[in-house]
Amino acid sequence: MAKPQFRQLRHAYGFDDVAIVTGDVTINPDQTNIEFSLGELSFSVPVIASAMDAVTDVDSAIMMSKLGGLAVLHLEGVQTRYDNPAEILDEIAQTPLDKVTPLLQKVYSQPIKENLIGERIQAIKQGGGICAASVTPANTKRFAPLVAEANADVLFIQSTVTSARHISKSYQGLSFTELLKSVPIPIVVGNCVSYSACLELMRTGIHGVLVGVGPGAACTTRAVLGVGVPQITATMDCALARDDYQRESARYVPIITDGGFRKGGDICKAIAAGADAVMLGSILAQAEGAPGQGYHWGMAHPHPALPRGTRIKVGTTGTLKQILFGPSSVTDGSQNLVGALRTAMGVCGAATIKEMHQTEMVIAPSIVSEGKWWQMLQAPR
Amino acid sequence: MAKPQFRQLRHAYGFDDVAIVTGDVTINPDQTNIEFSLGELSFSVPVIASAMDAVTDVDSAIMMSKLGGLAVLHLEGVQTRYDNPAEILDEIAQTPLDKVTPLLQKVYSQPIKENLIGERIQAIKQGGGICAASVTPANTKRFAPLVAEANADVLFIQSTVTSARHISKSYQGLSFTELLKSVPIPIVVGNCVSYSACLELMRTGIHGVLVGVGPGAACTTRAVLGVGVPQITATMDCALARDDYQRESARYVPIITDGGFRKGGDICKAIAAGADAVMLGSILAQAEGAPGQGYHWGMAHPHPALPRGTRIKVGTTGTLKQILFGPSSVTDGSQNLVGALRTAMGVCGAATIKEMHQTEMVIAPSIVSEGKWWQMLQAPR
Amino acid sequence: MAKPQFRQLRHAYGFDDVAIVTGDVTINPDQTNIEFSLGELSFSVPVIASAMDAVTDVDSAIMMSKLGGLAVLHLEGVQTRYDNPAEILDEIAQTPLDKVTPLLQKVYSQPIKENLIGERIQAIKQGGGICAASVTPANTKRFAPLVAEANADVLFIQSTVTSARHISKSYQGLSFTELLKSVPIPIVVGNCVSYSACLELMRTGIHGVLVGVGPGAACTTRAVLGVGVPQITATMDCALARDDYQRESARYVPIITDGGFRKGGDICKAIAAGADAVMLGSILAQAEGAPGQGYHWGMAHPHPALPRGTRIKVGTTGTLKQILFGPSSVTDGSQNLVGALRTAMGVCGAATIKEMHQTEMVIAPSIVSEGKWWQMLQAPR
Amino acid sequence: MAKPQFRQLRHAYGFDDVAIVTGDVTINPDQTNIEFSLGELSFSVPVIASAMDAVTDVDSAIMMSKLGGLAVLHLEGVQTRYDNPAEILDEIAQTPLDKVTPLLQKVYSQPIKENLIGERIQAIKQGGGICAASVTPANTKRFAPLVAEANADVLFIQSTVTSARHISKSYQGLSFTELLKSVPIPIVVGNCVSYSACLELMRTGIHGVLVGVGPGAACTTRAVLGVGVPQITATMDCALARDDYQRESARYVPIITDGGFRKGGDICKAIAAGADAVMLGSILAQAEGAPGQGYHWGMAHPHPALPRGTRIKVGTTGTLKQILFGPSSVTDGSQNLVGALRTAMGVCGAATIKEMHQTEMVIAPSIVSEGKWWQMLQAPR
Repeated sequence: MAKPQFRQLRHAYGFDDVAIVTGDVTINPDQTNIEFSLGELSFSVPVIASAMDAVTDVDSAIMMSKLGGLAVLHLEGVQTRYDNPAEILDEIAQTPLDKVTPLLQKVYSQPIKENLIGERIQAIKQGGGICAASVTPANTKRFAPLVAEANADVLFIQSTVTSARHISKSYQGLSFTELLKSVPIPIVVGNCVSYSACLELMRTGIHGVLVGVGPGAACTTRAVLGVGVPQITATMDCALARDDYQRESARYVPIITDGGFRKGGDICKAIAAGADAVMLGSILAQAEGAPGQGYHWGMAHPHPALPRGTRIKVGTTGTLKQILFGPSSVTDGSQNLVGALRTAMGVCGAATIKEMHQTEMVIAPSIVSEGKWWQMLQAPR
Repeated sequence: MAKPQFRQLRHAYGFDDVAIVTGDVTINPDQTNIEFSLGELSFSVPVIASAMDAVTDVDSAIMMSKLGGLAVLHLEGVQTRYDNPAEILDEIAQTPLDKVTPLLQKVYSQPIKENLIGERIQAIKQGGGICAASVTPANTKRFAPLVAEANADVLFIQSTVTSARHISKSYQGLSFTELLKSVPIPIVVGNCVSYSACLELMRTGIHGVLVGVGPGAACTTRAVLGVGVPQITATMDCALARDDYQRESARYVPIITDGGFRKGGDICKAIAAGADAVMLGSILAQAEGAPGQGYHWGMAHPHPALPRGTRIKVGTTGTLKQILFGPSSVTDGSQNLVGALRTAMGVCGAATIKEMHQTEMVIAPSIVSEGKWWQMLQAPR
Repeated sequence: MAKPQFRQLRHAYGFDDVAIVTGDVTINPDQTNIEFSLGELSFSVPVIASAMDAVTDVDSAIMMSKLGGLAVLHLEGVQTRYDNPAEILDEIAQTPLDKVTPLLQKVYSQPIKENLIGERIQAIKQGGGICAASVTPANTKRFAPLVAEANADVLFIQSTVTSARHISKSYQGLSFTELLKSVPIPIVVGNCVSYSACLELMRTGIHGVLVGVGPGAACTTRAVLGVGVPQITATMDCALARDDYQRESARYVPIITDGGFRKGGDICKAIAAGADAVMLGSILAQAEGAPGQGYHWGMAHPHPALPRGTRIKVGTTGTLKQILFGPSSVTDGSQNLVGALRTAMGVCGAATIKEMHQTEMVIAPSIVSEGKWWQMLQAPR
Repeated sequence: MAKPQFRQLRHAYGFDDVAIVTGDVTINPDQTNIEFSLGELSFSVPVIASAMDAVTDVDSAIMMSKLGGLAVLHLEGVQTRYDNPAEILDEIAQTPLDKVTPLLQKVYSQPIKENLIGERIQAIKQGGGICAASVTPANTKRFAPLVAEANADVLFIQSTVTSARHISKSYQGLSFTELLKSVPIPIVVGNCVSYSACLELMRTGIHGVLVGVGPGAACTTRAVLGVGVPQITATMDCALARDDYQRESARYVPIITDGGFRKGGDICKAIAAGADAVMLGSILAQAEGAPGQGYHWGMAHPHPALPRGTRIKVGTTGTLKQILFGPSSVTDGSQNLVGALRTAMGVCGAATIKEMHQTEMVIAPSIVSEGKWWQMLQAPR
């Protein structure tokens, strides 16, 4: 009998599985340049606030722009379903935990008011912000023209998993190449996690790719569907697709790692893995004045019968500025994210994000030993 | 001195060790076909209720058929030892934990009444159900004719480990090839976990193989005997045997992964690993009206001196329909299993179970980091 | 610059890291032969009670022989330091935890009375037992003649780590080859963990090797010294040495895996890894009538300034017979060890211990997933 | 499409991931020589107290010298910022946990008084100690002449990550080669973790390298920056650099593993991995009379906006002599470190530190099994 050809699986790694190796040269943190470009736009800080109702509203989008980053407004959440979204956000924050799931289901079953799309975008622009707005693939044909018309700066097209080729009975497959002809602003598409899916997306001509399926705290994808790739491997594979695509097309399409971040070190690792920028949810939901008011929750899910995400208490730890630039009032790495990135780049001798992509990482699981466990279990709580 | 030839061991993986990678193409969940065939029979849902007293009785078998799946009645449990099994099931459910082990030992030491075999099978048929019945290898020669005579649709022959060649003093080795001549219905045999054992079973001519030793929640095999292979590797190896056997025989013998499932994601992973269907125990014991009434327990064990499984409280979480098709009232992935499977197939671009077998998986252990642990330990309980 | 030649380390595995794969053929447990031979002696059960004061005294050694196994009396513990060891054992069992370490230090600082060596050995022989007695290398020259004179059946020479070549200022290096000439009974030496150390020991002409450094529950070697090899790898490597040695010498020297066992599954795995027998400590200390009375503790340590082992409460779970042969009153695999071994051999189709050595194992770490952890943490305690 | 060239990461290992394999020959612990040389200096014990305010002050430095080791006084901590550092140390020890972070920030914002540098060094020398003093790279040009002038014996130049080539706006890059011309004492530089960074440092002509980034208990580097290499791999890689450098230069530059130690076994492993000596923080902070008085804390950090380390309670467990030489009053391996090292070397047959570098280690993660976890969770706390 010939030896059976057993199926082989690749190993994939997440933030907690790896560590960054310091460089042979070091530079001062203030010598680092962390600029991020998307189409013609340029941002001094490679941090994007995610398109979630607990993270981004008009005010926080304006603030984020002023701080040098970008925030993405979700056009299918409370901001476009309600004339006065602040009222709804208050209600979500004030409802007791055992009553919040039905409330969320009710909140997101209200129809989207198309007129609010333009209103919200204009409010951000008038406040001096760069405006990025997010739609799902199913609604892209309907909403994308409104987004362009309202002079938004970037269009995000996002669902749990978005592919260049989607087959559906209920709506005509969306062609990004077609869409690009009619929408004259940078388009970022996501999410994907594999080399080939990322490459296919880039080949449609879009301007950025969101990387990440199943890693986030408010995300039930991995438990419910078994689907997901840990972020370091997903980022490394998509960064390879970006680099291979640049070789074939001479076009550099940035990738943005989205989801699963818990602290500054995770951001440094994503960048070292090849990300051009990071998209943050829970961490920014902890900002004073964040629309979630100390809470965070998942929103729509592709399958109506699957449960919506639970509301999670994230707390309020400091201002948005403090979270990004410090000074840090905590020692767990959840504040001064930009300072952490610059310092990490410094000890790696990386003057730019692209140089940081060359930094070595090692697999160094932070597995806890038996002795350590005892100690942790014995600790007072 | 020549270098010693150290013995090498293969790595094996379970549900929690892997994750499914999304596809380059995606399709809508409602475009997926999840049909499962066994002999001439066809099922719209590839889910089989396991042959355990807490999971399958006459009523739940009928219900399971109506929902498109299949349930297997254990012919050596309470259903055939007692004229009124409901009474015994009540007693098991109502006995306090510290008195339940002796009760279970007593319950399963009562003799099997052969007349009840036909009665139970006919009750299922009369209720409109497809009837599958399970016997152990030791009793197969005695009970199989009764099963066939009562017009059951499928015969399951199951023990912890069943091989094509068993050597015994106490009963004549069972030849599946012989048996197939006299029993005119599909025969499913299990359990096994390795490529070669699965291939040997298929070569006897049987119609399906159950995969899994030692992974289940109510199963003490792995702790007590050290025996067991995690389900993803067991499924991948047996799927390879199935495919190699198909090449040699042109016959497709489906494999059914049995045991260890805790949530929808596990089912998606088993299918991605190569399973044609899954057999569920504890998850279905959580259904309203399940015979276990919120409890689950192991039944007979091959060695009389080894302990029987403990009774485990699984709770009652929803109707059988809700568990299979939603809507889900929980967010832990233990409901809407079919919806989860279709959604996972959708994001993998798999239109059929066989296409899902081609999906990539990665090794992505959900190891918990030190930081996460602290957080979990600090959480209120 | 040439690529640096980074140092590579081998992976080593313990009981919890592996699982046994079931066979293509299965046999009934009662068809298995688990006999173990040591020199001319033969034992119906391949289980040896370790030379620890909490495990073996005269009575338990006699009982162990009657049950088909072997017990080893430590000749440098309380049995030879005290005329009435039962009194001391009572005192150890009754002393509160916070006062027991100084007590143990005092107990083991009393001198060994040479006359008690013969007395204890004869008591075991007179009770109908096979007598095995254990000494440390440092005292072997002095005590071995007394052991032989008293007609003991087997001599064990044991320390944490024993090598064929030991260099010392304080006592003349012990030559096993010399010793064998003067002591006319089988000699078992340990402990060791590596292929080459085991091979060197076998080449001296001794009759058995104990395998295991640093795995045991009452053993502080690994934490304090960083020294130790997990038992599966240690056993596989020493089994390879045994087989290679048999090829070069035509002499079969059995290996006995010693330490770290917690349940029947561990014993099955040690045998599958190549052990001819197992030496048990804590598990047997749980027997009714065990000298430790529900406690277990480490004894002398090679370095006087290193701490002695702590006393650990192991409890009393059943009779020695029950622990070995059942029926099991618990479901954690700590009873009916022989039944478990026979059942495991049955599902692997192994008729003898040597056939069990050929069984496949896989690396299948019983890592607990995040979800499972939550569940465990939530459980009532 | 050509197969994508996925990025590969190396595995890195820490203390808890490995174990030392015993040797074919064993020697008595008292036959081992554990001497450590640094430039012309020689120490009978290869243990260095780290340059942290909770570990080293004038008195403990004198004591450490008398015991055969070396202590490093931090010249940028409380010892040089305050005329009476004992007062400040008292205040830190007596401040409640919730008020200690602002206090530490205030304490370390006071200016360094240059005159105290000489005073502290002379106090150590007058007390009969060997004096090692530590400065950061940024202050080296300013303080190094003062250190030399005061007749210190060794100069340590330390920051989280120090490279041979540092690029900065704010201060002129430090050339170690230049510095060596003007400072006539051995210079030890750190910290680094990689082969190439270590090799570059050695090529500047310095006399010792500190190995370790991100492993220590009072160190937030890994969480906040994602940067760090587990100590066994870092030590093995730097030991290879040392050996390769010796081949190219005929100069032997010792490496000192710094940080992350919790018990004697860790020290044995670091030496087996190639370290010539170890630098200890928390373990020595547990000594009676340690300046931290049972506490330990991180000090300055390269980036002013990143948080300083939290104060951690380490407790007081015994005298410094007891911690180094025993007798041990505890069994967790945190005392009698030298005894542990000698015993480990004995069972490995290593007569010297250099022979211990040749000892085999295996990867043997002390992962805790599910069963063990239950047991731990059930244990009373």
